[in-house]
Amino acid sequence: MKDLVLQEFKEGKEISSKGYALFSKDGNFKPYEFKRHCVGERDVLIEILYAGICHSDIHTARSEWGEVSYPLVPGHEIAGRVIGVGKGVEKFKVGDLVGVGCMVNSCQSCPTCQSGEEQFCDEGKTIFTYASKDIFHNGELTQGGYSSHIVVDENFVLKVPQNAKLECVAPLLCAGITTYSPLKRANIQEGDEVGIVGFGGLGHMAVQYAKSFGANVSVFATSESKRDLAFRLGAKHFYNVKNPKEIEGINNRFKVILSTVAQNYEISDYLKMLKVDGEMIIVGVPPIANPATLNATALIWNFRRKVYSSLIGGIRETQEMLDYSIKNEIYPMIEMIDIKELDNAYERVLKSDVLFRFVIDMKTLS
Amino acid sequence: MKDLVLQEFKEGKEISSKGYALFSKDGNFKPYEFKRHCVGERDVLIEILYAGICHSDIHTARSEWGEVSYPLVPGHEIAGRVIGVGKGVEKFKVGDLVGVGCMVNSCQSCPTCQSGEEQFCDEGKTIFTYASKDIFHNGELTQGGYSSHIVVDENFVLKVPQNAKLECVAPLLCAGITTYSPLKRANIQEGDEVGIVGFGGLGHMAVQYAKSFGANVSVFATSESKRDLAFRLGAKHFYNVKNPKEIEGINNRFKVILSTVAQNYEISDYLKMLKVDGEMIIVGVPPIANPATLNATALIWNFRRKVYSSLIGGIRETQEMLDYSIKNEIYPMIEMIDIKELDNAYERVLKSDVLFRFVIDMKTLS
Repeated sequence: MKDLVLQEFKEGKEISSKGYALFSKDGNFKPYEFKRHCVGERDVLIEILYAGICHSDIHTARSEWGEVSYPLVPGHEIAGRVIGVGKGVEKFKVGDLVGVGCMVNSCQSCPTCQSGEEQFCDEGKTIFTYASKDIFHNGELTQGGYSSHIVVDENFVLKVPQNAKLECVAPLLCAGITTYSPLKRANIQEGDEVGIVGFGGLGHMAVQYAKSFGANVSVFATSESKRDLAFRLGAKHFYNVKNPKEIEGINNRFKVILSTVAQNYEISDYLKMLKVDGEMIIVGVPPIANPATLNATALIWNFRRKVYSSLIGGIRETQEMLDYSIKNEIYPMIEMIDIKELDNAYERVLKSDVLFRFVIDMKTLS
Repeated sequence: MKDLVLQEFKEGKEISSKGYALFSKDGNFKPYEFKRHCVGERDVLIEILYAGICHSDIHTARSEWGEVSYPLVPGHEIAGRVIGVGKGVEKFKVGDLVGVGCMVNSCQSCPTCQSGEEQFCDEGKTIFTYASKDIFHNGELTQGGYSSHIVVDENFVLKVPQNAKLECVAPLLCAGITTYSPLKRANIQEGDEVGIVGFGGLGHMAVQYAKSFGANVSVFATSESKRDLAFRLGAKHFYNVKNPKEIEGINNRFKVILSTVAQNYEISDYLKMLKVDGEMIIVGVPPIANPATLNATALIWNFRRKVYSSLIGGIRETQEMLDYSIKNEIYPMIEMIDIKELDNAYERVLKSDVLFRFVIDMKTLS
């Protein structure tokens, strides 16, 4: 396959890729062969080595956040190696280790893109890694990382240091940046109290970042079995929210509560635990049909407790996160799977039966 | 009456006061004579000259925010003159013009009180100006400003400059600080876009403060008749929200939207109008039985748009607001009333039929 791809690259043709796709919202994964657009002047051709499975892949691929087109190859936690570059590419060369996250392009020229927040492109031209209409390539639908090769504008490719544990890098590209970005912006100081709600793929990264910023970390979770793991990853407190007594009387304590919960729950339950000027930051996005709720009266009467959501991070910040994570050895705990186990992996993610992130070994794609 | 009060003060007795009270949640105002506690070492004895009528007086006095005890004298927008001081009082002397706002005491020693935010006293000992159990005075119920005299700890009395329009000062103590505090904290810069939702007692102050901070101010209101007034007070845009076409397409514009609405409405309707990292600040508190709502899904999908409420401001900040307002001639528009017109005034407030704040002339209390 690699020889074919390199030949296509050399001849300026579309690039063959194979992967696993869903063919309907309630179907199973099946092998799928498709074409990537040609490698343009400023594009990087990447051989994908590992792809993480994100909870949002499931929501998106099953049309739970809105209808998507099929066949659909999900995956926006991508780690691989450069095997070709367009003539104008300046930042990468063949052989480099690289990552691709949730975005593959944007207008790149509006004030917001220029400020490094391409996920909020003023022109609305953010192109997400899969299930997105790529207006820069004739409106083709983007296909994600559960596949062999991908072609990406160099400005949306992340550099991965040579000393990184590559198989663990993939989940940093979504779970990492999604939690790093808001925690970094929250300006956490040594000794600040930080709560992390939900202790899965995102939550276990959030605990590590908050701890690395100097926080006293509390984990709010529903799996008693994860109590010891929370402590091992740096938490000072673990609260099983299924046992209301454990969380009684926790008032006015936290500077930041980061919620990674992707199921329905009542957001305001946590507001009284915040200090004045504390922030509840939401990074888990429940399905639209089974949404979280927020009692406005509780919000109003918990004065000066802020609530907002956060969406991944810009490319510059993602690079900062990658460098920070690898330097400080902050990695996800992963379970490597064969790409043929995707359906089962999805079911296990939904049951929170994974410690903590599935990563597809792309060698199994054959 | 003043002679009697001064005699009681001299003899260290409880202070006679008369005012207008409600005797039940659905009753009318009637004259009421009662005693204030003795003037303590650090207390100031104030002859009340003007008292503003705040929308929250109505909610509280009618038990719409929780059951209160009767008879109840509302009023937490108080302007008057010092007629006596306790032996230990250092900040005030007889003859000074003063104000009293929403609080009359707190523990004064916890970190939060020390930091000047007595409304959030860590000990929960904030004593509000009326309908509050005063633990520092044997649990007596506090009575508010629709009355002739009040006795207040000097640390909760505000200095009013001699050149102030005293009849307009009263509403600053609640409507002023409630809007000044969050707008000041929001760090508004020259040219920032700021939206003010609701254009009544609070809203018309908010417009003036936001304008004075350099903002381009937009008003969202329901009374077409107030359009010209909004422009006169400094607004650049006026949107009648009853006409959905007027607000179509206002997206990603505002740094701050301050909502003063004290009725039920959907808070998230305004979120898409905020820029990334913009803030929606809620200072209007609807009745608990007819609450505002907040669609959590809309909050989550409007990434990095913050929502929170704000509660008045601390004493230090209230003094800052008073000094700022008087120096910059920022005053409420008021309609002076006879205290015997209270019932009618309440009905008119509920119909938004006042430009913009009723102030009781206490000379009419006889």
